Amino acid sequence: MKDSEFLKKNERIDQLYSQNIKIIQSPDVFSFSLDAVLLAAFAQMKKSSKIKIMDLCAGNGAIGLFASQKTQGLIDQIEIQSKLADMGNRSIKLNHLEQRMKMYNLDVADTFKEFEKDTYDYVLCNPPYFKNQVESKKNPNAYLAVARHEIKTNLNQVLAISSGLLKMNGKLFLVHRPDRFLEILETLKQNRLAPKRIRLVYPRQHSEANMVLIEAIKDGRPDGIRFVDPLYTYSGKEYSDEVKRLLYGN
Amino acid sequence: MKDSEFLKKNERIDQLYSQNIKIIQSPDVFSFSLDAVLLAAFAQMKKSSKIKIMDLCAGNGAIGLFASQKTQGLIDQIEIQSKLADMGNRSIKLNHLEQRMKMYNLDVADTFKEFEKDTYDYVLCNPPYFKNQVESKKNPNAYLAVARHEIKTNLNQVLAISSGLLKMNGKLFLVHRPDRFLEILETLKQNRLAPKRIRLVYPRQHSEANMVLIEAIKDGRPDGIRFVDPLYTYSGKEYSDEVKRLLYGN
Repeated sequence: MKDSEFLKKNERIDQLYSQNIKIIQSPDVFSFSLDAVLLAAFAQMKKSSKIKIMDLCAGNGAIGLFASQKTQGLIDQIEIQSKLADMGNRSIKLNHLEQRMKMYNLDVADTFKEFEKDTYDYVLCNPPYFKNQVESKKNPNAYLAVARHEIKTNLNQVLAISSGLLKMNGKLFLVHRPDRFLEILETLKQNRLAPKRIRLVYPRQHSEANMVLIEAIKDGRPDGIRFVDPLYTYSGKEYSDEVKRLLYGN
Repeated sequence: MKDSEFLKKNERIDQLYSQNIKIIQSPDVFSFSLDAVLLAAFAQMKKSSKIKIMDLCAGNGAIGLFASQKTQGLIDQIEIQSKLADMGNRSIKLNHLEQRMKMYNLDVADTFKEFEKDTYDYVLCNPPYFKNQVESKKNPNAYLAVARHEIKTNLNQVLAISSGLLKMNGKLFLVHRPDRFLEILETLKQNRLAPKRIRLVYPRQHSEANMVLIEAIKDGRPDGIRFVDPLYTYSGKEYSDEVKRLLYGN
């Protein structure tokens, strides 16, 4: 079967040169962003085929697909929007990963109708960043609005479900916005998740962070948080060397 | 009176080339560190002579002395160790700042025996960083041990006193260790202090943060935290350009 036969209307296949993975994208409904690339790179996971990974709020599945190149573990993905879940499902087949990856078109709220608690080693999550406030400007594209705003889920639900999925000492890898950092820390704590490793992402030198990568451990001790070296997205008008490496390889 | 006449045994006068301030130091009991320079630089304060500033856990008074160059406000300082308070007191005279600076040899616990609540615009604080645990290695020099370990005070006391001193919407500028960041955030919250601006300090590129500068507002809204651009102490084996500027001027 040719790659193009996997595609529906207004879809294309993208590939990062640094990754041996093809991803079905559609500008109409969702394209993965740098956030997904950075979260997958941030996640430190065992390579063993015995581990289990959940990609929550998976969108078109990019993070789980990138993660499949770092481990031989089993990867499940949950996405509420059927068009996106369908794209992710076809990307799994396109990359011949059906044996160890599966996309579920599911509301996060229904996670434990389908999955058992305390069974995952890792949860990866790139949730909607923005609060669903009446006054907040939402994307007029309903697909993008759901992906970016807390319309169908929210921070507390996402972290409660993540914690429920994880085994004791399992790890959550989360990407979010630094302006919600205090709320994230409190919500992590309420859900038995202890933040351990933080990486702040700055668009460029001499500017404020616009993204934060967080590793948290279920039932971990609430001390010894580490802020690892900052990541800069741009250097001048180009991507920084580190981002170039992640996107284009060496 | 000559500068040297202000000195006692084993003391010397240090001056940052970037600051028109002389500081009496003694390697036997206390010398200010880069932390003090960075905290004073981080503090954004009004220049008005009407503002009031408290330098808590003042040591030999370096932070208050540096702050005196950024504002015309009144500066009070509290230091529990009489030898250090005495050095700070003489540095105030050495710099002819008696009209608007005063050092108090006082236990932080006794702050409100001497000072009124809700009266300060800014509190600057470089507190002892390390918990006073039985197993923790303390400096055999008792002066340095008190300055670095929570022997005579602790984080909660320091933040409770800071909050008590501040007017509503007054600002605390704190320097501390990032491994205690979660505890700091919780203790700030318990004391009506909302963190607003964070600057992480990294010893060099590609290493973990070893210092954190925090601006918190009394009774501020608990959202919208900002992580401003990171500061690097070294570039190779030399101080970074930014630190050089702070130490040696332009």
